[in-house]
Amino acid sequence: MQEEHFTFEGIQDFITQAMGALGLPKADSALIGELMAKADLQGSDGHGIIRLAPYAKRILSGGINLNPHIKVTKEKLATALIDGDNAMGHLVMHKATQLAIEKAKITGMAWVGSHHSNHAGPASLYARMALDHDMIGLYFAVGNANHLPPWGGIDMLLSTNPIAAAIPTRDETPIVLDMATTVAAYGKVKAKAQKGELMPEGWMIDKNGAPLLDPQKSDEGFLLPIGGYKGYGLSLVVGLLAGTLNGAAMGKDVIDFNKDYKTTTNTGQAIAILDPNAFGDIDDFKTQTDRLIRDIKNSAKMGNTKRIWLPGEQSHEKRIEHLKHGIALPSALVEQLQQLAKQLHIQALTPLQNK
Amino acid sequence: MQEEHFTFEGIQDFITQAMGALGLPKADSALIGELMAKADLQGSDGHGIIRLAPYAKRILSGGINLNPHIKVTKEKLATALIDGDNAMGHLVMHKATQLAIEKAKITGMAWVGSHHSNHAGPASLYARMALDHDMIGLYFAVGNANHLPPWGGIDMLLSTNPIAAAIPTRDETPIVLDMATTVAAYGKVKAKAQKGELMPEGWMIDKNGAPLLDPQKSDEGFLLPIGGYKGYGLSLVVGLLAGTLNGAAMGKDVIDFNKDYKTTTNTGQAIAILDPNAFGDIDDFKTQTDRLIRDIKNSAKMGNTKRIWLPGEQSHEKRIEHLKHGIALPSALVEQLQQLAKQLHIQALTPLQNK
Repeated sequence: MQEEHFTFEGIQDFITQAMGALGLPKADSALIGELMAKADLQGSDGHGIIRLAPYAKRILSGGINLNPHIKVTKEKLATALIDGDNAMGHLVMHKATQLAIEKAKITGMAWVGSHHSNHAGPASLYARMALDHDMIGLYFAVGNANHLPPWGGIDMLLSTNPIAAAIPTRDETPIVLDMATTVAAYGKVKAKAQKGELMPEGWMIDKNGAPLLDPQKSDEGFLLPIGGYKGYGLSLVVGLLAGTLNGAAMGKDVIDFNKDYKTTTNTGQAIAILDPNAFGDIDDFKTQTDRLIRDIKNSAKMGNTKRIWLPGEQSHEKRIEHLKHGIALPSALVEQLQQLAKQLHIQALTPLQNK
Repeated sequence: MQEEHFTFEGIQDFITQAMGALGLPKADSALIGELMAKADLQGSDGHGIIRLAPYAKRILSGGINLNPHIKVTKEKLATALIDGDNAMGHLVMHKATQLAIEKAKITGMAWVGSHHSNHAGPASLYARMALDHDMIGLYFAVGNANHLPPWGGIDMLLSTNPIAAAIPTRDETPIVLDMATTVAAYGKVKAKAQKGELMPEGWMIDKNGAPLLDPQKSDEGFLLPIGGYKGYGLSLVVGLLAGTLNGAAMGKDVIDFNKDYKTTTNTGQAIAILDPNAFGDIDDFKTQTDRLIRDIKNSAKMGNTKRIWLPGEQSHEKRIEHLKHGIALPSALVEQLQQLAKQLHIQALTPLQNK
């Protein structure tokens, strides 16, 4: 696959310029630029600048409120409901997470839900915000397209509803889990289709329950939840917590944002923040977490395993690698972005001369 | 398999008498009898009266504090840490859940963790307590024996760390998810061994990563986490939240309670309670949840699927069936319990004359 390399700052600035040209206020554009570029920086490449063109299409179709009034509409000591007023989801969940952190400082833990939000990028971005405050972050979201049926059914009523968790450490890399409740995220299926490769068994099944291997036929089947009926239950519960509880879309009401660029999605998300000091001492907690991480890393290994990874370590290494050598983008994506630059009358993306 | 039938009250009373004879205070014995019998009633038969003999063995070995002072040692508005003082886990988590419910009424949501607790039966028992208050319950626990290594490793550092969630409904059966983070719980492996059957591929692997099918050789392999590395991450995060955060055992410190009946387990659990009224209106929430449940039930079905189940429906139907026709216990278990009755000088279990 042909690719070119770009700096984090270059990607951040390009997105910021594009959002500004699309009509978003300056501060909002800058925040979205930062969060989307952070997704690329950590290797969440299905959630970074690759989303810029679809976001632009939604904005130009009138599917996003560019001057939203994001507000708390319901609040108790440890909880809040945020009405995103159909803003870009990044703005909604950044604000929700900040609020949850402030509340958790007082109450020990807090849970903030959103409705009338939109796609907000990788779940880990918001869970990770807790780490700067030596806190634990948990994030739940309703996915923006239904790709799986209930277990035993064929109606698409559930999404890949992701879970993220960020756990602070002392010397070791923080633990950051960011997982869909399906075996494969839908982006992985699309990537296989682009490469002309077959999918491994276990990713998708067809309407008769037989393995579906051809990613070109993904519309004829559905993603498999992790652990079979367990993942179905988990996806459902995450959807109830992030969607239904907040009066956001869930089940039949979920808009497929890859097909419909105009209808308000009423996306729901939730962020929970826990302060380890409320349960013990943060220094003890970090020491024990470091010790556990080292025990896991030092485990005897199976067969050809070279290294045992903790959740979040691969993203951490990608951040270092990308800051040093730049972020690779496929040439087809770069071309799409340069077209968008022309359309929006902003400066083109400038690749690094040498990797 | 030979079996006999017993009433819920008969099982409850037998456990209560046994706990009293083992030296527990009357109220504590009654509460444990109720919670353990409720496990059998809902079909969580790996967590009900089948545990009585092992619990008795632990108590008689001095592994449980019979007159504990279960106390809150750390508290903020929305959080508490409960020191179980090495009590029976049922007593600790019943108290923890009551406290979390009271706190959530004020703050909107609350999170109570435990340490120096013990095995408390099925996770769903405590999550379900929220339903009587029209609230949502989430429960996390560190399993009492390590049966899986980190992904790619072979050192047993993780357990089946379960997650439970209970969601209130209006007319439909409440949604109650209760799942281990492994494909099969360890109890299922033991059941296959007892029946002399092979396990299906996907439950366990051996130390070379090859499928392990013979349940008699389960000591030579490990359980597989759901979704491979995802379930590994999930088990780790649940363990950090329920164990490490509370200063409870996690990783190397977990005592295998099937092998060691004396050492304090320092078990950690956590219960989180959310009040739907803090995010919207409980009646709206129940209406929407009911609607979602009906959409799922009415989904077109795959192949030979007769019925689409929601999490918690099978337990619900077992409760009705068991109240009507009694709870079946395997004859080998009944014999073990009658031996225990003699040893403790309590009345024998009386089977129902006719099913």
